[in-house]
Amino acid sequence: MFMKHKRSQTSEGILFTDQYQLTMAQLYFTLGIHEKDAQFDHFFRNYPDYGSHQAGYCINAGLEWAVDWMTNSEFSDEDIDHLRGQKSQAGEALFKEDFLSWLRESGNYGSITMFAVPEGRVVHPNVPLTVIQGPLAMAQILESGLLNKLNYQTLIATKAARIKDTARGQPLLEFGLRRGQDKGVNAGVRAALIGGADFSSNVGISHSLGYQPKGTHGHSMVQVFIAMGEGELGAFRAYADLYPDDCLLLVDTIDTLESGIPNAITVFEELKRNGHEPVGIRLDSGDLAYLSIQAAAMLDKAGFPNTKIVLSNQIDELVVWQIITQIEQEASKFGVDPSRLIKRLVYGVGTNLITSKGAPALDGVYKMVALSNGEDWTPSIKLSDSPEKTHNPGSKKVWRIYDKRGMATADLLTIGETNPGDMDEITLHHPLDHTKYRVLKSAEISKVEPLLEKILNKGKLVYKFPSIEEIRSRRKMDMDHLDSGIKRIVNPHIYHVSLSDELWGLKKQLTNSAG
Amino acid sequence: MFMKHKRSQTSEGILFTDQYQLTMAQLYFTLGIHEKDAQFDHFFRNYPDYGSHQAGYCINAGLEWAVDWMTNSEFSDEDIDHLRGQKSQAGEALFKEDFLSWLRESGNYGSITMFAVPEGRVVHPNVPLTVIQGPLAMAQILESGLLNKLNYQTLIATKAARIKDTARGQPLLEFGLRRGQDKGVNAGVRAALIGGADFSSNVGISHSLGYQPKGTHGHSMVQVFIAMGEGELGAFRAYADLYPDDCLLLVDTIDTLESGIPNAITVFEELKRNGHEPVGIRLDSGDLAYLSIQAAAMLDKAGFPNTKIVLSNQIDELVVWQIITQIEQEASKFGVDPSRLIKRLVYGVGTNLITSKGAPALDGVYKMVALSNGEDWTPSIKLSDSPEKTHNPGSKKVWRIYDKRGMATADLLTIGETNPGDMDEITLHHPLDHTKYRVLKSAEISKVEPLLEKILNKGKLVYKFPSIEEIRSRRKMDMDHLDSGIKRIVNPHIYHVSLSDELWGLKKQLTNSAG
Repeated sequence: MFMKHKRSQTSEGILFTDQYQLTMAQLYFTLGIHEKDAQFDHFFRNYPDYGSHQAGYCINAGLEWAVDWMTNSEFSDEDIDHLRGQKSQAGEALFKEDFLSWLRESGNYGSITMFAVPEGRVVHPNVPLTVIQGPLAMAQILESGLLNKLNYQTLIATKAARIKDTARGQPLLEFGLRRGQDKGVNAGVRAALIGGADFSSNVGISHSLGYQPKGTHGHSMVQVFIAMGEGELGAFRAYADLYPDDCLLLVDTIDTLESGIPNAITVFEELKRNGHEPVGIRLDSGDLAYLSIQAAAMLDKAGFPNTKIVLSNQIDELVVWQIITQIEQEASKFGVDPSRLIKRLVYGVGTNLITSKGAPALDGVYKMVALSNGEDWTPSIKLSDSPEKTHNPGSKKVWRIYDKRGMATADLLTIGETNPGDMDEITLHHPLDHTKYRVLKSAEISKVEPLLEKILNKGKLVYKFPSIEEIRSRRKMDMDHLDSGIKRIVNPHIYHVSLSDELWGLKKQLTNSAG
Repeated sequence: MFMKHKRSQTSEGILFTDQYQLTMAQLYFTLGIHEKDAQFDHFFRNYPDYGSHQAGYCINAGLEWAVDWMTNSEFSDEDIDHLRGQKSQAGEALFKEDFLSWLRESGNYGSITMFAVPEGRVVHPNVPLTVIQGPLAMAQILESGLLNKLNYQTLIATKAARIKDTARGQPLLEFGLRRGQDKGVNAGVRAALIGGADFSSNVGISHSLGYQPKGTHGHSMVQVFIAMGEGELGAFRAYADLYPDDCLLLVDTIDTLESGIPNAITVFEELKRNGHEPVGIRLDSGDLAYLSIQAAAMLDKAGFPNTKIVLSNQIDELVVWQIITQIEQEASKFGVDPSRLIKRLVYGVGTNLITSKGAPALDGVYKMVALSNGEDWTPSIKLSDSPEKTHNPGSKKVWRIYDKRGMATADLLTIGETNPGDMDEITLHHPLDHTKYRVLKSAEISKVEPLLEKILNKGKLVYKFPSIEEIRSRRKMDMDHLDSGIKRIVNPHIYHVSLSDELWGLKKQLTNSAG
């Protein structure tokens, strides 16, 4: 058997990085440039494209866990021993003792300065979401783990926000534990809560985050009662007896309309007679739009117009949209008021949320944008055959510009000290095409807001992490300031991310001199 | 800041389960049936379907980590306190003190008996891969965590096996750390190694598993040298100087054909003069098939016909197949021998392997198949509107039948004590369609092999976990005994999973009586 704790230390601590970060770090050490200051930007290049539908925004997430991991990571003797054991192709030690000594002493993130866009904020491609300044070797080693922690949570917060928004704010439950990547699901639960899930079925991480987990019962419970000769009704009665105020019944084990819902209604009536309020039913198979209409009609008729109807099979934002559309078109044919039905729905989302089905990874990257030459910064660029992959150089500031209606109209990247809020007019350059730009007069602008906040100052935390509830409020506020075209789940409008005059000039200059 | 260790305990231990498992367990406890023996089967229903391509087999993985987690999980006082804090809708304690006391005392997996198909074996839908026998409440609580540990690793081992097979056995490197689900990537690395990856770039988990991580350098290293005025050639020279026997150069930072490869050749010549063997180059962008042909031509001409060419941008099995096809069609036009080129390729696979892009989850489920009535087992079934979702009831054995050529021809599920290897002929029933069956005479059969092994006997480990290298050998052997039609990456043949006469009869009888 593994020794569990030992495995976790080695594989989840500072060695949670890629080998090439260490070989590069040793090269910098050998050349004596390992403590030269460098700046790296973390950003993503593309919104998730789910195939049949596409995101027009992302929800930033993962920062607190990334910083928690960074500030708890350093090289132990055991980590160093592992590296000491690595051999070159010629059989010699790959890592030299002087480098290993330096890692043991100084191989931590205690010299890193970090700026970041707070969690829960709506974010867009090519905008620096996390900015790292620090000694070249450690800033380089940080790359893999940082991207790991930030990419996934942003991906899932985004998916959750899309589902929540499409569901018109109805309750959203995260159910993905069995279908995610091992322990990684816990990060997904946190991100789902940030993005819009109200609760998760995952017990441990819910408690760690201060939420009460949610759940009801599974098909196997009904099977147990059938095997004991007591049938579905016996199962529902026993459950209601133990949980009279939390009675949510899964009605599709045998036959939803013929058995499950009638049995649930029988038990709900018994509960009501005893002074309890039944919570609702859950549908986990079949045509969820049709069944939810029939269920609503049956529950209404039986005198339970307020019980919830939880839907939970292969749900994602496209399915939610189709269910709501079908209800709006068909419910009234069955005597059910569509808007009342839509307002009693609850969505339980498993696989498609925890894996961000259709787009299971965010393409967040980490690029060196400047290197210190001792006194000031030399901006750095990496050209690419694809111009859209050429990053924006230099130490930048990020501003969100709101129009007269108070809606976010563009994110602007600038260099230097100028505050675009102080200018009479702002030129917004298209990041790639020099013929495209627009000019905003200050009269057209209601607010210019800086997005990056200082998180770490040379390793010291200088930021108070908000609670998840505060992050959720931030997300709601940003979503409210986003045009509905941007939030559309299929073919959304493109939000503008623009460069200032100075940044556009620098990028052009570096591209020309490198090319 | 979080207290890291505390968070891990709560969120990664026995509370790594879904809430409904606990509410059901409490119901069983209240009814006094929580220690009644139950049997659950874990199996998956469908091979991964990646959209444009589909799997015709899976590689079983995850067992050792699942058992490791089970045998290290029990309720701590802190876990119990969390549950004690849960409230019903009426504000009362959701979990009663007598149930919590029982959990504190007996809430572990020490009474579970487990049978399983070993890791690395080729497996198919609806075949029980893990069989759990034990007290109803704990066997139920186990479901979520067990599925979490098994589904993901099987998914990734399968993807890795497909890529390795399509790559004709060429070296495969796992690069997915930055794009997976937080710490879950470590499980993905293990599964990738089982399925066919030879090494991973992920340092910590590679060391934990006894592998040396692999990697070279990134674009940022070349950028650093450009910023210092020394250019790509300076970067390559410095790298070769430090790693003369491990010199693998990333050649696409500036321009692959005009700058990267010529500079690499210059450095390779210098290495050669000093008695070192250069390892190769890495291509990370552009048309990898075209560029690898051009690179091979340039390296051949310069006298480096054996250096490796590592390909690493958005690779999956379909891309590998297309690259190889294109090389076979076009390489000779450029004076390059296609089969020699194909044999010098190495594949670095990141996002598409660690996320199993196209099919980011395996639909593994856990179904109650029998409940003890004190003396013997009552088989249990859950009907479904979709007949293919009705599971196979009862306590089953699993046999793999090999034909005269020694190839696997079917997996057979049986109940009772009969060994199909002792029979003159075996009837193989289609699992759903009673008109479909085939009869195999013993003369047509070369071997009948039981697939399930006993892993835990009432919580005690009675199985010696093989090393990853042994698991890899097992996988290779099983792959060699699989018809090429089954291994085809697009529209594979369907492998037969069949029911014995007795099992078919039982399923029909239970279906009729329940319906």
